[in-house]
Amino acid sequence: MTISEAGAHVGQSVTFGCWLTRRRSSGKIQFLQLRDGTGFIQGVLTKEEVSEEVWDHAGRLTQESSLYVTGIVREDPRGKSGYELAVTGLEIIQITQDYPITPKEHGVDFLMDHRHLWLRAPRQRAIMRIRARIISAVQQFFDENGFTLVDPPILTPSSAEGTTELFHIKYFDEDAYLTQSGQLYMEAAAMALGKVYSFGPTFRAEKSKTRRHLIEFWMIEPEMAFVDHEENLRIQERFVSHVVSQVLEHCRPELETLERDIAALERVKPPFPRITYDEAIRMLQELGMELPWGEDFGAPHETALAGKFDRPIFITHYPKGIKAFYMKPDPKRPEVVLCADMIAPEGYGEIIGGSQRIDDPELMAERFKEHHLSPEAYQWYLDLRRYGTVPHSGFGLGLERTVSWICGLDHVRETIAFPRMLYRLYP
Amino acid sequence: MTISEAGAHVGQSVTFGCWLTRRRSSGKIQFLQLRDGTGFIQGVLTKEEVSEEVWDHAGRLTQESSLYVTGIVREDPRGKSGYELAVTGLEIIQITQDYPITPKEHGVDFLMDHRHLWLRAPRQRAIMRIRARIISAVQQFFDENGFTLVDPPILTPSSAEGTTELFHIKYFDEDAYLTQSGQLYMEAAAMALGKVYSFGPTFRAEKSKTRRHLIEFWMIEPEMAFVDHEENLRIQERFVSHVVSQVLEHCRPELETLERDIAALERVKPPFPRITYDEAIRMLQELGMELPWGEDFGAPHETALAGKFDRPIFITHYPKGIKAFYMKPDPKRPEVVLCADMIAPEGYGEIIGGSQRIDDPELMAERFKEHHLSPEAYQWYLDLRRYGTVPHSGFGLGLERTVSWICGLDHVRETIAFPRMLYRLYP
Repeated sequence: MTISEAGAHVGQSVTFGCWLTRRRSSGKIQFLQLRDGTGFIQGVLTKEEVSEEVWDHAGRLTQESSLYVTGIVREDPRGKSGYELAVTGLEIIQITQDYPITPKEHGVDFLMDHRHLWLRAPRQRAIMRIRARIISAVQQFFDENGFTLVDPPILTPSSAEGTTELFHIKYFDEDAYLTQSGQLYMEAAAMALGKVYSFGPTFRAEKSKTRRHLIEFWMIEPEMAFVDHEENLRIQERFVSHVVSQVLEHCRPELETLERDIAALERVKPPFPRITYDEAIRMLQELGMELPWGEDFGAPHETALAGKFDRPIFITHYPKGIKAFYMKPDPKRPEVVLCADMIAPEGYGEIIGGSQRIDDPELMAERFKEHHLSPEAYQWYLDLRRYGTVPHSGFGLGLERTVSWICGLDHVRETIAFPRMLYRLYP
Repeated sequence: MTISEAGAHVGQSVTFGCWLTRRRSSGKIQFLQLRDGTGFIQGVLTKEEVSEEVWDHAGRLTQESSLYVTGIVREDPRGKSGYELAVTGLEIIQITQDYPITPKEHGVDFLMDHRHLWLRAPRQRAIMRIRARIISAVQQFFDENGFTLVDPPILTPSSAEGTTELFHIKYFDEDAYLTQSGQLYMEAAAMALGKVYSFGPTFRAEKSKTRRHLIEFWMIEPEMAFVDHEENLRIQERFVSHVVSQVLEHCRPELETLERDIAALERVKPPFPRITYDEAIRMLQELGMELPWGEDFGAPHETALAGKFDRPIFITHYPKGIKAFYMKPDPKRPEVVLCADMIAPEGYGEIIGGSQRIDDPELMAERFKEHHLSPEAYQWYLDLRRYGTVPHSGFGLGLERTVSWICGLDHVRETIAFPRMLYRLYP
């Protein structure tokens, strides 16, 4: 049995392996807070009702000692899990000494150095459970909507975005780089499979330390043939709403552990407000945040704009100069592109960037020249416009930002089991 | 609409975007083989029944031209998809010229250079669909069995297996390596979450070219607290059987495209035969393949052993000298370890390696000395035995080998969208 299954065993004697998180004693009764990874339950021992050996063993248990416990499951409406265990037997696996993470406050660096143990804390466990639920909601959404999962390569000969923030690798006699985005490959896959999505790690060698950045982060990148800008937005708002609703449905105890404002998540329903870049510039002006047309928003701008709405918003039609080379210009106004960033509410910033892609081979060749991209390295990408080009769109969701928002965290470092940051490669 | 949804639109007029794979004409009738990524359907035009413009447009279509087609869906019991389209309208998006992959035979190097286009071939599409189904069956199995998905880091300070086949990266001022396995991190996660699994890319800088190896390959690595060697095997056979049964249930047309022997897959049901390493040595001897005790099996040995059985087999209890440092010795016979490799039938070789892990802190410290592992770099891993150690087990499934086996492929290079091999980093 596992603790999460306790409800199916009320009145029965069960045995399971677990760890002690805390022990309290009041003379003739001992309370053991137990965890097994699947959940938490309180074990209760009454001196009169257990053998002397079991009573003594329980008394020796320290924080994070491991044990097999036997007992009768009882309903306990007061307890958080709804059940408790009347302990009848107890086999010690290991008495743990000097567990580093005590109930007292620890600094972040200390906790990060002990990330392998910190993960056992209820708060960290709750975040990991929500992260996993988000991922399974992502898979469910795309499976149910006719997408095929495709894994783009991690080792690539060149960068998708032409930036310099790349990790270099000697790939035998060649130079390779860690991927920053699988998008270009996903475009090829969409021409073969219609609607595709990826879920995998991406890397940015950015020498910055902010609460929104990781060096190694996971992206979900759907790409869809025969889908235009407008349909792209409709899919995104349905997608994000689905993910949030799945977390609300399945992770209530975890959200409570994190003291997340549930009402803010319950408002995440389509349609999401759409504002153009131009409108956003005007709104910022009204808020006293002047920004010249053509400049990109920073985190404070995004937070200010998001603050005017109660759910995620789309900012659309950015100037082409601040967006990626492959975005399709608006036919009615070619100085802006058919793109949208999705900005999460409550100051969590951009969680999605997406666009309709250029499908015209000549325009794409032009962009290559403007951006000094090597037509040789990207020959295959140009081929997609040469051989049966079609209108297509896609987007990329940053998983850790999304986890951060849904969990209501201050910093992305808690959104992944073993974060990789500037000066942080251990454990 | 998409082609896969044609069955729900019989008798209706539908419009969808697609590509032409082949056109045949017999005077007054044209047959268009159409694909949209979700499936294939034949479009039929009768000269008398369509406008001259539509007839002419159809006549201009070349292989991989892109178009929007309109027509009435009709049942067609002779056709592969069961439906055909009586074309009434046709809008050309692009007439493709000189599509490189023609119906004639091409060499493998040529096809690999054009992988971005080769993916459009029905055979490649079938493999990608089966791969995606395998992955979703993996997720389903673990979700339904109480596992939490955890993403271990890709960038690591040191190697899990102590080998030299590592890709090196300059991580700002530190040295980092691409992961070869997430297992050690998954052990930490299992102590926090009970049962966990990972799905992610791993890397091996091996200068070898075989039909079973990729440089970049995806692994599924479950790790389970309070699970011993025997239970580990039972979970593995249920897991692999579930994956195969899901493919059989959902991918029949794709398996037919690949001309896969379905009967061989239908035999994949638990229990899987278990033979010890010692028995395997004896069986090889009987087959005239002498191998001294203590040496590892090569591909020919695995194929010979698998050939004696009709489903995957476990080879258990290998000598500790040829297995990883963290495997738990058999208490009854400490020169062998509580491990198992799962060998796929039909010569596809090892698809799973797994074991119970050492949980004794002193024995683990000894192994560290024997294997010259730095206690500093692995401090966190030693901590897992120091603070609440518990019996635990896990395994790793190589995704591409599994896809290769289930699809019945000669070479792993077709099991992933953009394979990375020695001398192959493009596209």
